[in-house]
Amino acid sequence: MNDKKKILVIGGSAAGPKSAAKARRLDENADITIIQKAPDLSMASCGYPYYVGGVFDDRNMLLCTPTGVVRDPKFYLNAKGIVAKTETEATKIDRKAKTLTVKNLKTGAEEVLPYDRLIITAGSVPRKIPVPGADLDGITTLQSMKDADYLRKIRDEKKIQKAVVIGGGLIGIETCEALQLAGIEITVVEMLPQLLTFLDWELAKLVENHVKSKGANVITDNGVAEFLGENGKLTGVKLQNGTELPCELAVVAIGVNPNTALAKDAGLLLGATGGILVNEYMQTSDTDIYAAGDCVESLNIITGKKVHAPYGDLANLQGRVAGENAAAGNSVTFPGTIQTGICKVFDFAAGSTGLSEKAARTAGYTDIETVINASPDKPGFMTGLLLVTKIVVERKTGKILGVQCVGPGDVSKQLAIWAMAIRGKLTVEDMINADLPYAPPFSLAVDHSIAGAHIIQNKLKGRMKGISCADVKKKLDAGEKPFILDTRGPDEFELMRLGIGEHLIPLGALRSRLNELPEDKSAEIICFCKISLRGYEAARVLEGRGWTNVKVMEGGVMAWPFPREK
Amino acid sequence: MNDKKKILVIGGSAAGPKSAAKARRLDENADITIIQKAPDLSMASCGYPYYVGGVFDDRNMLLCTPTGVVRDPKFYLNAKGIVAKTETEATKIDRKAKTLTVKNLKTGAEEVLPYDRLIITAGSVPRKIPVPGADLDGITTLQSMKDADYLRKIRDEKKIQKAVVIGGGLIGIETCEALQLAGIEITVVEMLPQLLTFLDWELAKLVENHVKSKGANVITDNGVAEFLGENGKLTGVKLQNGTELPCELAVVAIGVNPNTALAKDAGLLLGATGGILVNEYMQTSDTDIYAAGDCVESLNIITGKKVHAPYGDLANLQGRVAGENAAAGNSVTFPGTIQTGICKVFDFAAGSTGLSEKAARTAGYTDIETVINASPDKPGFMTGLLLVTKIVVERKTGKILGVQCVGPGDVSKQLAIWAMAIRGKLTVEDMINADLPYAPPFSLAVDHSIAGAHIIQNKLKGRMKGISCADVKKKLDAGEKPFILDTRGPDEFELMRLGIGEHLIPLGALRSRLNELPEDKSAEIICFCKISLRGYEAARVLEGRGWTNVKVMEGGVMAWPFPREK
Repeated sequence: MNDKKKILVIGGSAAGPKSAAKARRLDENADITIIQKAPDLSMASCGYPYYVGGVFDDRNMLLCTPTGVVRDPKFYLNAKGIVAKTETEATKIDRKAKTLTVKNLKTGAEEVLPYDRLIITAGSVPRKIPVPGADLDGITTLQSMKDADYLRKIRDEKKIQKAVVIGGGLIGIETCEALQLAGIEITVVEMLPQLLTFLDWELAKLVENHVKSKGANVITDNGVAEFLGENGKLTGVKLQNGTELPCELAVVAIGVNPNTALAKDAGLLLGATGGILVNEYMQTSDTDIYAAGDCVESLNIITGKKVHAPYGDLANLQGRVAGENAAAGNSVTFPGTIQTGICKVFDFAAGSTGLSEKAARTAGYTDIETVINASPDKPGFMTGLLLVTKIVVERKTGKILGVQCVGPGDVSKQLAIWAMAIRGKLTVEDMINADLPYAPPFSLAVDHSIAGAHIIQNKLKGRMKGISCADVKKKLDAGEKPFILDTRGPDEFELMRLGIGEHLIPLGALRSRLNELPEDKSAEIICFCKISLRGYEAARVLEGRGWTNVKVMEGGVMAWPFPREK
Repeated sequence: MNDKKKILVIGGSAAGPKSAAKARRLDENADITIIQKAPDLSMASCGYPYYVGGVFDDRNMLLCTPTGVVRDPKFYLNAKGIVAKTETEATKIDRKAKTLTVKNLKTGAEEVLPYDRLIITAGSVPRKIPVPGADLDGITTLQSMKDADYLRKIRDEKKIQKAVVIGGGLIGIETCEALQLAGIEITVVEMLPQLLTFLDWELAKLVENHVKSKGANVITDNGVAEFLGENGKLTGVKLQNGTELPCELAVVAIGVNPNTALAKDAGLLLGATGGILVNEYMQTSDTDIYAAGDCVESLNIITGKKVHAPYGDLANLQGRVAGENAAAGNSVTFPGTIQTGICKVFDFAAGSTGLSEKAARTAGYTDIETVINASPDKPGFMTGLLLVTKIVVERKTGKILGVQCVGPGDVSKQLAIWAMAIRGKLTVEDMINADLPYAPPFSLAVDHSIAGAHIIQNKLKGRMKGISCADVKKKLDAGEKPFILDTRGPDEFELMRLGIGEHLIPLGALRSRLNELPEDKSAEIICFCKISLRGYEAARVLEGRGWTNVKVMEGGVMAWPFPREK
């Protein structure tokens, strides 16, 4: 008789190995086995685009420990005491018998493994496009190590000239960068009106402008109607509007679905999002079965609603919780996600934490305030780089609901700051006097995040009426004629200007040139400058002098996502 | 009769201009005047070391707006409607008459200015060393624009060969770097046993090792006895232990005191720390007088005790509060500080937020747990750089009291994360599953901060007994003979090793080589690896096999601050 606990883990990418390792650390005597369909284990799948793009050349770096040891079955056995069966597919869970049937994909041999606790970390499957030609050679995803190998080979061979990336989400954009850096002419096709849907439109548009400035083509509001081919090989992509894009390669990156086939067959409950339903212990509807990672649905802490959140970091955290509870009984919990995400986009980074304005409104928040703040991340003398941030708060409480940030500056730190603020349920008032690490090599004296909080505080107190660039554009397109005041200097105006009928009165001259402003004190005036700090000061001057309908165009020229005159 | 509110601001560096500008934005009609002793205004004084070091050459960059306009009196008048009197000293506050006497330092003319509200932002004065020779030519501080100009000239002239920096704090270290980059041979002299006293010893030692590796000399535990000179010029520094250091330049950077002479003369209350006493509205003991910046004392939010916190970012935040309340009546508050600070040290950054272990113990915390975590900031394939972090928590509640971080990695983001965690009064449990922005260009899948929380959770749960490198060294120095187990690979051992009598058994071989461990299951065993992750796994293996006194040397080789065999 063997009284060692038998723990089986289905899936060997992120959540699986993490849960197995955690279980091992808590129970040196347990029998722990990982069942992995792919040949590799513990792949750093978020690193695929950087391998494809040539940021590094050694494929093993995606598979190895920080000290360079490849995490293969031998490593798992020796270093962790964990059996890892690769190229082995889990085919059936018998919950009554508490067994898992697995099949060796090389030999075809089947085996029935008993378990005391089962952990399902089956990951996700890429969505497919159900159009003609989808099985042509030259169409791939970037979801597996095999995909990464395929695309890396294409990069190295330098034979392919044109590629289409279908889907403008995180993976799509990362793939676009990787292939563009390989010298391939890229077109990104996105069905929605914008890239990166975790951003609100105006920030996504800034990213799109940047992607285009790097030479990649972007087509939004359009989907794929058909893949075109000759002799079984892809030759082009036909879009829903009839456009044909000749290409030899298409990468489909329109998102992923939780991989739940096995769980569903076993009768485990799925949630409304399609992911495996788990409680805060990462336990499924069967108390002996846990699940973690891309295959489960998670709680959004802010809205209280369930979401599918396939993020690599969450997979690790959830795996740790599942592993501990499977090994030692339910003792730790996973509180949920605020859906913090980031991606590199050429020289930009773009990310979001919490809710975008769109997501907040969808979730039922009606009483919200937003602000767009643009500023460098560091002082000019330390060659600060631009950040553009949008903050979304609940007006009544001042509670921070979400923050998006894009630009060449230190986006990652900004998002980390706001993610922690949201995690701590902080309000705008709390952020006003946040105590962050300041020295010129690292930030402004008043950090970009804190300055953003100051602006939204001004808005909440009624001291600043903001208007987004998009709303200014809408007004103009609708034929409205607000008085638009550019408060920058003449040199700046010469270098770069919107050309939307604006009047140039530098802030320093404003008080002596008030006669150039509309006589009607109720006329609509819209002030801006490069980042709209001087625009805000101008608005305060005008309000102090009796004008009653003065707005600040948030983020100024730096946040203007439309073509400029100059 | 003039019913415009008269607001006078004493001081024109950080807090002063900020409070004046904020007051202006709230009251377009007020008469606002800044009294500034120096010739310049709004100097980015934290940028002086980078100007001296040649990071940039245009002196005006320290004085100008983000768009390149120098913030001189004309700028203040035109853009802000603020009168700025430079080279003008405030000499007397008459609180009864509500007037301020000021003296024009160029003409000697005196003027008495009435005020409704006075804001004192007089800054700080550098501490002096009361030893013979302190008035020799060649001795300076780096506190004023004039000092920066003086040191920059020395850099550019390239005549001086040797300099001594007295004081190993933030300014001392930054000055050391600046002068060392200028090709001057530098010795830093610090009276205490370590540099950067906001760090605990073991992290400060890592910084010291880095400073030395860059070619600068560091002498700790020693003070200045005398400045040596010839013909009125500095020729050397004599230390308290008799050592003489020949040099042509000495920079004194032993800290600053709040500049309170004027406030004290006027009978305003000072606090126990020596700074001007203010309430949460930044209001002094006279309700018509506010104060902000380096001249006041602040509340430490964690301990509830008053501290002198002369940080540039706090000066700005406090100035904003003082300006608003002076202009519009008490309406906003400054909650206090958690003393977050950071500095660049050659290729390292070093900083702290909240309490160090030392500070926590001084503040009366007795039931605390600490951990040292070392890891790269990003994956190896994205060329991650090392971070070494020490976390201090209250054991009973798990509340995070403070975090220090040093290394070539992204220290700034780590500190920002922890500063927000402390601001949100988060516990270790909250940090375990923090949702931070993850993508390989920006962080590990399990961020360094979260991994640190995981380790301290393991310690709090009794799953890991940690021991610091310093305590291991102490044991060895005291003649104790613990069994020291290096769990790295043979290649790593060949490349770099401690040489403290350790036994090399790679983690992957441990389970099959248990016979090499002490037979006595109660023998003390200390495990480590490069960063002590494998060290921790080894400890779990040994505990699982019955050894009862197994410790993990925290941070591993990367946190070992003493000389290594290799």
